[in-house]
Parts: sequence; structure tokens; C-alpha cells
Amino acid sequence: MDRRSFLKNTALGGSAAAATSLAAPAYAQGNRTLTMVTTWGRGLAGVHDAAQYCADQITAMSDGQLTVDLKAAGELVGAFEVFDAVTAGQADMYHGVDYYFLGQHPALSFYSQIPFGMTFQEYSNWWYIDGGKELGDELYSIFGLKAFPCGNTGPQSGGWFAKEINSPEDFQGLRFRMPGQGGEVLGKLGASVQNLPGSEVYQALSSGAIDGTEWIGPWADEKAGFQEITKTYYTAGFHEPGPNLNCVVGLEVYESLTPAQQSIISNAAQATNIWNMSQFMANNGAALQRLQSSGVTLREFPDEVWDAFGAAAQEVLQQNMGDELYKKAYDSYRESLASSASWISRSEGSFRSQRDRVLDI
Amino acid sequence: MDRRSFLKNTALGGSAAAATSLAAPAYAQGNRTLTMVTTWGRGLAGVHDAAQYCADQITAMSDGQLTVDLKAAGELVGAFEVFDAVTAGQADMYHGVDYYFLGQHPALSFYSQIPFGMTFQEYSNWWYIDGGKELGDELYSIFGLKAFPCGNTGPQSGGWFAKEINSPEDFQGLRFRMPGQGGEVLGKLGASVQNLPGSEVYQALSSGAIDGTEWIGPWADEKAGFQEITKTYYTAGFHEPGPNLNCVVGLEVYESLTPAQQSIISNAAQATNIWNMSQFMANNGAALQRLQSSGVTLREFPDEVWDAFGAAAQEVLQQNMGDELYKKAYDSYRESLASSASWISRSEGSFRSQRDRVLDI
Repeated sequence: MDRRSFLKNTALGGSAAAATSLAAPAYAQGNRTLTMVTTWGRGLAGVHDAAQYCADQITAMSDGQLTVDLKAAGELVGAFEVFDAVTAGQADMYHGVDYYFLGQHPALSFYSQIPFGMTFQEYSNWWYIDGGKELGDELYSIFGLKAFPCGNTGPQSGGWFAKEINSPEDFQGLRFRMPGQGGEVLGKLGASVQNLPGSEVYQALSSGAIDGTEWIGPWADEKAGFQEITKTYYTAGFHEPGPNLNCVVGLEVYESLTPAQQSIISNAAQATNIWNMSQFMANNGAALQRLQSSGVTLREFPDEVWDAFGAAAQEVLQQNMGDELYKKAYDSYRESLASSASWISRSEGSFRSQRDRVLDI
Repeated sequence: MDRRSFLKNTALGGSAAAATSLAAPAYAQGNRTLTMVTTWGRGLAGVHDAAQYCADQITAMSDGQLTVDLKAAGELVGAFEVFDAVTAGQADMYHGVDYYFLGQHPALSFYSQIPFGMTFQEYSNWWYIDGGKELGDELYSIFGLKAFPCGNTGPQSGGWFAKEINSPEDFQGLRFRMPGQGGEVLGKLGASVQNLPGSEVYQALSSGAIDGTEWIGPWADEKAGFQEITKTYYTAGFHEPGPNLNCVVGLEVYESLTPAQQSIISNAAQATNIWNMSQFMANNGAALQRLQSSGVTLREFPDEVWDAFGAAAQEVLQQNMGDELYKKAYDSYRESLASSASWISRSEGSFRSQRDRVLDI
């Protein structure tokens, strides 16, 4: 994914909208409007849908007590100002992915995505059961915030390439678009990492200005039209195996709500979480079949390339170990991941490969 | 899993409690108590937890309007009477797994579990996005019911064996405990299928009266103590890769609720769904590590055995194709499964095997 791309459907972006003056929340007859800002352009498939779904559930369940007014990126504040807007009390809550805010705290990476990190189910295991929530509450409370997992894109694709990748050396000098920590990893392999906004990627790939790009997954990639330019599609990627989207509420706002209203917000986010993951996964499945029918070749990076990704990712992840809270979250995250992964691979992993082989799926 | 085992923690079971006379629901000052019966003995880890979690969320969110009174199996009606109790209006809702009620309609198998069927995520894709819910509404409405996915055990283990399984012929005459459609499949391979209640399985395996048993997964299996008897544990199984637990509400009851209350029930079930799956998966991961430390050897069935499971499962699944609604659900289920599985295996599946290899998990 990409920071700037999420602004493309909006007229306003970035700091342009930051100066918008905000009315104080309305408290009439016990009813209340909560303003939700987001890091997504209005209508952006999947991610905006998650914010809207959560907002709608809160409004519906509270029977008029709470109305969530969703302001997409640029409608009230810019996409990358939502964290500040909620900490400053300009908005009541935001929906977004918190690797946009690593400048606030590097440990936010665990609550969004790290390279070679958790899938959706593994993150859910950590958050709901294995102590991730308690450490997350500690982290977010530093900023006067409270976070609720509220959607997930599922695993993001390895990307579209002008030519095949057969060894780590093929990344030397490769002009590839990948933002964030994933891009840092490719940089260590010698790639010339481009951080183009979403609106410019198609043209850059088409003109040969870049040699490849990652985007999100088949559903979004097909909409972007990359299959018109190259047929070489790496389906599995190392960089975002299951980015967690959060609904983040101002702690003061949250604590001013009744226990029933707090429970409504928590359950709405949790219900959104599985719904949104399913939305991405089902639509990706259907889109993948269409891409294959249109002649796209699905590829996997060889082991040697994954080894190189892994070594570089470890370097990137070690950078912040001096921070105590980062280290604590890292240790908890890795312990839960190892435990979850061992069972998942031996149960669901083995089952699925056998079933798909036997049923010829 | 097993039908009768879920009764073991209760004093009452089966039809013994069916004659209990039930008070009419209380409608005082707009507040209302909803009686939830379940197919689980009180306190049975994971499955009873799902029912309790859902009940608690409904009660908390509705702020006194709805109080869910959970009656475990045998406390009001027996485990296998919950379907009838809700259709008859004796109880307002039940929590359970609907393969217990295939006698009511064979298509209920798709809404619980079929051998070689969907995992949790695949079922979620089908239910929430790919039309499973619409067909489910049609099926359950025949009985005056409305179903909401509300928990999942995750993939159930292949089971504990006195000796290794190296070919399909090793099932000839093998005395193995497996209930339901999975047991039918093993029967076609020549196994002598035993349908022992849970309370008798440990003793039967220990005495050599049976040669093996499946149960649930590492978390529950460890509690049952099978590792004390044999160290040969097949982790992946064909029979229940992700049994869906349902919260099923009487349609008349549901339609008598306000839209906000209906939304609360729907969201509570959905929030329970991901929480409960995470509870099973996280606890299974931790238990698997303990089992390995205690000397249990983890095994996988060879391809040839999976092929035999697959062929026999197809025979079992074809039995009800004469029923129109079964056929419609089967076609929809298989189409969604193929679409979901193709993306999951090429994204999450490939990512996890590479990540686990590179990180040595």
C-alpha cells in the first residue's frame, strides 16, 4: 500500500485541510455525534468500506445515542493528520493503518504491520488472547488513545514485474515502487526504491520509468489495471502479510461514554474485523481467477530471494531495539507468532495443501 | 468432536430435561430476558466460552434492554433438543454446531462442517460475501430460525493412533473413534468406527479397546490426556477443518426486536466469531508446544491416505444431491471455496511457508 494513494479520490489532501475549524461535539438530549476521520480517500474499496461499516454498526446499535459522522481523508483533516486530530481532540476517533505514524512511536509497527510479520489470524491470536491488546493499550495510552482492530486487507501481493526475479541480484538497480519498511528492505538488496503516489504508478510502469510495483492484492490491482502492462505477477510478498487496520478512539472520549456505549464500539470494531478481512479475501479470490483468465502468469519468488528478503528485514526490524516498549512488543509479538504459526502450519496449512491437491482446486 | 461428550460436565443430559416447563419470556418496562440454550456442557472450554461471550456482549451492549440467560446443555433442555426448543418457542435462541441436526435437513452440513470443507476464513468469505448467508437465511427460515456464525474451533486434529498410518490399508479393521460424516468416511476405508461418548474415550484408548481417536485440537486433547497413552499424533485431519458454531435465534423473536437490538445480536455474534477462533488457535499453539516438549511426535498422513480420504468423502457428500436446496448450497459452497482457496494458497499459504522456513519457526 502507499500513503499518498489513499488521497487520490479526494479533492483535499495532506495539510491543506488541517486548518479546518471543527465544531465541538453535540450533546443534545443524551444523543451524541462522534466524528471519525480516516486515512482513506472516500470510496476507496475495502479500506474505506471498513471505516464505513464500523461507523454504521455503532450508529445502528446505539439506537440514536451515538451517530458516527465519517469524514474521509481531506474532508476534515488530511490522511496523515488523523492521529494528531484525535490526540488534540479535533476529532473523536480515526480509522487507519498505524504504520503511517511510526514517527510517533516505532512500536506502532507491530499494531499495523512489520515485514515477515503476522497474518490476520496470527495478529488476532496475539491481540485478543496472547497479550497484544494489553501492550497495545499501554502504547496507545501514551498518546491518550485507545485502539481496536477494525479490518485487514489480508496478504498483499509480491507485485508486478517487467521481468522475472530469479535471484536476489535481480533487485540490484531495479526501479521498484514499494513504500515503508518493505521498501527499506528492497533498498538493502540494491533496488532503487520509488515511493510514487498511487495516481502515478500506472503511468510510470507503463512508460518504463519503473520496472515493477507492488500494490495491494488482486481485487485492487485489477482495478488499477496493471495486468494491461505486464503479465508477470508475484502473488506472495514478504512486506505486508496482513496489515491491521485500527479504529482508534480518543481516550477521554471513550471514558466519557457509558459502559454499554463502550461495548458497542468494541464489538462494532471486532465485527468489522472479520467482515472486512472476508471482503478482501473473497474479492481477491474472484479477481485472481479473472486475472488468470486474462493471461496473467502467477509466480513465486525462489527460496534464495526469500532468504535475502528475510535477512534484510531482520536488519530493518533491529533498528529500534533500543526503545524499551518496542523491545517488549517485539518479544511478545515474536513469541505469539512462533506459537500460532507452529499450529497453523501443521493443521490448516497441511489440510489446505492436501485438500487443494486432492480436490484439484 | 462428539455429540455426547458435550454433556459430560452436566448433571442432566439428553431428553431427561426436555420436560422442564419454561416460563414465558419476561417483558417488563421494555426490558426483556432472552433464553439461550446450548449444545455444550457448562464450562466446556472454547465452545461454551463462545456462547457465554456472545451472551455477555448482547447483555452489555443493550444496556439492560436485553439480558441473555445462558442455559448450558441439560440445564433446561438436552444438547440435542436445542433446535426443537427454539423452533417450538421454548427458548429464544441456541448456540451450537448444526451437524447435530442433519436429520432436520442435510444442507445444515454446509453451515457447520463437511469433510474436506472450508476453513474458518473460507467459511467467513462464503457467509459474509459470497452468498452463503442468503442461502443460509433461506434454509433456516424453513424452520422459523435465523442463524449467525458465532465461533469456530479451527482445524481439528487428525488424531491419536497406537501405530503409524502408512497407507489406506492401515485403516482396514482399525478400531477408531470418529463421529459424524468423518466416521462415515473412515468406514468406507474399512475402519471399525466407534462412536464413544467423550467420557469413555480415554479409558478405551488406554485399555486398547480402540486403536485411536480424534478429539478436537491440542488445547482440548491435552486436557483429555491422550499424550499419556500414545505419542503418535496426526495434526492435520480431513474431517473438520473449521467447524462453524452458530447462534440461532427464533425468527419470530428476532422480528419482534427493534432494529437496534437486531443489530446488537448480529454484531455480538460476529465479534464472538473472530474472538473464539483466536481463542482456539492461540491456545492450540501453546498446547502444541507443550505436547512436543513432553515427547509427542507430530505426524502427517501420506498423500495416498489423503487421496483415499478424499474419494470416500466425495461419496458421502454425494448422498444428498437429490435434495434441491442441498444441491444449491453445495454448488455455491464449492464455487466460493475454489475461488477463496486459490488466492489463500498463493498468498498466505506461500508467505507462511517461506516465512516459517526463513525465520525457522
